[in-house]
Amino acid sequence: MASSEFSHVDATGNPTMVDVGQKQVTRREATAQAVVVLGDEIMRHLQNDEIHTKKGPVFQTAIIAGTMAVKRTSDLIPFCHPLPVEKCKLDIRVNAQREVVITCTVGVTAKTGVEMEALTGASVAALTVYDMCKALSHDIVIRETKLMEKTGGKQDFTRS
Amino acid sequence: MASSEFSHVDATGNPTMVDVGQKQVTRREATAQAVVVLGDEIMRHLQNDEIHTKKGPVFQTAIIAGTMAVKRTSDLIPFCHPLPVEKCKLDIRVNAQREVVITCTVGVTAKTGVEMEALTGASVAALTVYDMCKALSHDIVIRETKLMEKTGGKQDFTRS
Amino acid sequence: MASSEFSHVDATGNPTMVDVGQKQVTRREATAQAVVVLGDEIMRHLQNDEIHTKKGPVFQTAIIAGTMAVKRTSDLIPFCHPLPVEKCKLDIRVNAQREVVITCTVGVTAKTGVEMEALTGASVAALTVYDMCKALSHDIVIRETKLMEKTGGKQDFTRS
Amino acid sequence: MASSEFSHVDATGNPTMVDVGQKQVTRREATAQAVVVLGDEIMRHLQNDEIHTKKGPVFQTAIIAGTMAVKRTSDLIPFCHPLPVEKCKLDIRVNAQREVVITCTVGVTAKTGVEMEALTGASVAALTVYDMCKALSHDIVIRETKLMEKTGGKQDFTRS
Amino acid sequence: MASSEFSHVDATGNPTMVDVGQKQVTRREATAQAVVVLGDEIMRHLQNDEIHTKKGPVFQTAIIAGTMAVKRTSDLIPFCHPLPVEKCKLDIRVNAQREVVITCTVGVTAKTGVEMEALTGASVAALTVYDMCKALSHDIVIRETKLMEKTGGKQDFTRS
Amino acid sequence: MASSEFSHVDATGNPTMVDVGQKQVTRREATAQAVVVLGDEIMRHLQNDEIHTKKGPVFQTAIIAGTMAVKRTSDLIPFCHPLPVEKCKLDIRVNAQREVVITCTVGVTAKTGVEMEALTGASVAALTVYDMCKALSHDIVIRETKLMEKTGGKQDFTRS
Repeated sequence: MASSEFSHVDATGNPTMVDVGQKQVTRREATAQAVVVLGDEIMRHLQNDEIHTKKGPVFQTAIIAGTMAVKRTSDLIPFCHPLPVEKCKLDIRVNAQREVVITCTVGVTAKTGVEMEALTGASVAALTVYDMCKALSHDIVIRETKLMEKTGGKQDFTRS
Repeated sequence: MASSEFSHVDATGNPTMVDVGQKQVTRREATAQAVVVLGDEIMRHLQNDEIHTKKGPVFQTAIIAGTMAVKRTSDLIPFCHPLPVEKCKLDIRVNAQREVVITCTVGVTAKTGVEMEALTGASVAALTVYDMCKALSHDIVIRETKLMEKTGGKQDFTRS
Repeated sequence: MASSEFSHVDATGNPTMVDVGQKQVTRREATAQAVVVLGDEIMRHLQNDEIHTKKGPVFQTAIIAGTMAVKRTSDLIPFCHPLPVEKCKLDIRVNAQREVVITCTVGVTAKTGVEMEALTGASVAALTVYDMCKALSHDIVIRETKLMEKTGGKQDFTRS
Repeated sequence: MASSEFSHVDATGNPTMVDVGQKQVTRREATAQAVVVLGDEIMRHLQNDEIHTKKGPVFQTAIIAGTMAVKRTSDLIPFCHPLPVEKCKLDIRVNAQREVVITCTVGVTAKTGVEMEALTGASVAALTVYDMCKALSHDIVIRETKLMEKTGGKQDFTRS
Repeated sequence: MASSEFSHVDATGNPTMVDVGQKQVTRREATAQAVVVLGDEIMRHLQNDEIHTKKGPVFQTAIIAGTMAVKRTSDLIPFCHPLPVEKCKLDIRVNAQREVVITCTVGVTAKTGVEMEALTGASVAALTVYDMCKALSHDIVIRETKLMEKTGGKQDFTRS
Repeated sequence: MASSEFSHVDATGNPTMVDVGQKQVTRREATAQAVVVLGDEIMRHLQNDEIHTKKGPVFQTAIIAGTMAVKRTSDLIPFCHPLPVEKCKLDIRVNAQREVVITCTVGVTAKTGVEMEALTGASVAALTVYDMCKALSHDIVIRETKLMEKTGGKQDFTRS
């Protein structure tokens, strides 16, 4: 098995950035999702009459934090390339199972993809929802942060 | 229900930072955990003979990225207070179910706790493991990012 | 006139940070204000029926950006000391003259004050209001960014 | 009135980044201005014999801080796109009314403009002038931060 | 001698960023080197049986810190342009004189070169080696940080 | 030899931050030096009649960049603790051998020392001098970056 399969580990076993200099500039998009399970007490606060006064600022703060984190991905993940993010769309909603579902889609015209950007945006938005709710209870779990789809690179991906 | 229960939402429904000026300076610690489930193909690479040349750099890169993220928590999460982190310990191991378990413990002597720092460190370490493995497969899920324990604040917490 | 009167310029005419090592740790607060004058067209959008759907996200985004900038003041202003911000309260409202008035109060327990933090928070919140409105018109002026009050240092200040 | 008129607020009332993926790459420039009014006492120090030893370091520090802030605009303003700044020129002078006039011109070859970069550079330079002078007096007001001109986008703008 | 010869000083003697807007987009690379001389005691620890358990984490941490610093060069050096780094390769080895030799190669497709990025990466990697070893002794000197080679710009350079 | 001797490597061979929670808060200072050797051509420009118009902005830009880097040390060096820097003094002069000597002194009241802050400040100031001069020639070497003195910790140090 060639050592290049872990793209960020070189032949001598040291971590390294991949050289993307020869790759094609294409429009690339990626969508990631994080699901936050808030305990019953917190959900009661978010869903009842407080829905406007509370859910608004909680989710909007998370959208903003997620967006800013997307732009800072290469500053957080050691071997990510800095990319000129062109699009970043965060959507947060409560699903039928009363889970908070965060979806983050990032787009760029560049030589490498934005999977890590989308995952970082969803993760930091999830952490922000946590921070906004934690005074009520620590019965909070961020689960299932994962890539949903990516297009525009060598190989498209859609989670089945 | 008092509006102060969402600590970062004020009486007018706007997001805000909590004033911790009157709180006691105490030694506080928090431990968070993130579990990364890598698909079979990736795990095969990490567990066989490549264990030294590959797992070393992958996990060490994640430890470093997680540590740096801990120190940058207040820069990522809008209403977190900047804290003089005194201790940050990241541990990454593969459990019996062949899952990568990341544990992040943070300590500080300050007026407020470090739950968000521990959670952010575990999350960014998990994202870094993802980034180091993603060339092999996107069959990766970060799940169960959660607080395990916190001490030194108004109320201790241990996940049961 | 002693060269020390410009506190950030030393005797040789070079810029320098003030040594605050011998100063007292006290609780210090500062309040700054920035006024944004939006042209008629933008104000019509903010004040009519769009008041909930538009003013909410515009002002909340500005509050969040201002708060994050407060924490990053020493990273932006070359000779500001890094301070453990304990309190940051941004308030944005429309006054009788239909101007957007941003007030930013910052608190800290430290050896030096937080005037620059309050001014930076108000300024970045004002820039964010500008950014959120600029697609409608560039008839926007940020004016009268100034310190309103500071307490806890060698000398209190209240703008008369 | 279509909800898209506030470009950073989406149809559901949440803040969001504009997708500039389909826009043209053109050379774009923007010039912003901030005026700082220093009280009589501070101006006396800057204008008399101290003009070389003091004004030099004060204004040069502001030029440097403004330039660094220009490059960090997308890190400060939540929905600004990261842009590869090619040109940044800050000029600071004292006008006939003894006001400090800061002019910041930014240039880029990109899909979106640099108004916010120019405004952020002028604002942070103004805050830095404030910081360098504040030991003398808090009789300082930053006023009239505004866009003067922009070219290269869909619509040019010149302040009349 | 024309004032433009110091490219970051303008005709009025103020520091300024060079406008690279009219320059050609080409593939550019630069390689810098830093040499760290660790005293005998530290070298004994790195070279004997501890070579695997100690040199691994010391050098890998330095590689990661150097890589992250490369990406942050324009945030550290006031008049550097932000560049979309495509390649960053750090190599650290012990030479025959028992010196630690750090080589940092950076590549980009852009309007200006990456000398400062390569030099910054080598410098921060050297500082990190220092930090990892300093508990043993302060008998450490970083010497000979210099550019080795650059290609792709107006004029190639190879250190003779 | 105990594994704790490399303070940032733990018993399992992984890099880690030292826990300074139990250390004493004391006033600590450290001074570092970097020497930049500029080739003859560059020195001619700095020393002749251009001394005021050129050396001023070159050295002042380096002082500012060094000061800002001091404050960002824990963001650059993976296992450095964030510290509330109270004092930072950069001095740059040309010695008898026509070398540029940068001295950086940092002071803090904290549980751990500021050697890395002083070294980082000197290094980034040196890189900035390089950047300001490199259009004239790449005949530049940064050499002899080293700690000169530290006080206030477990053990004082003075370079002999």
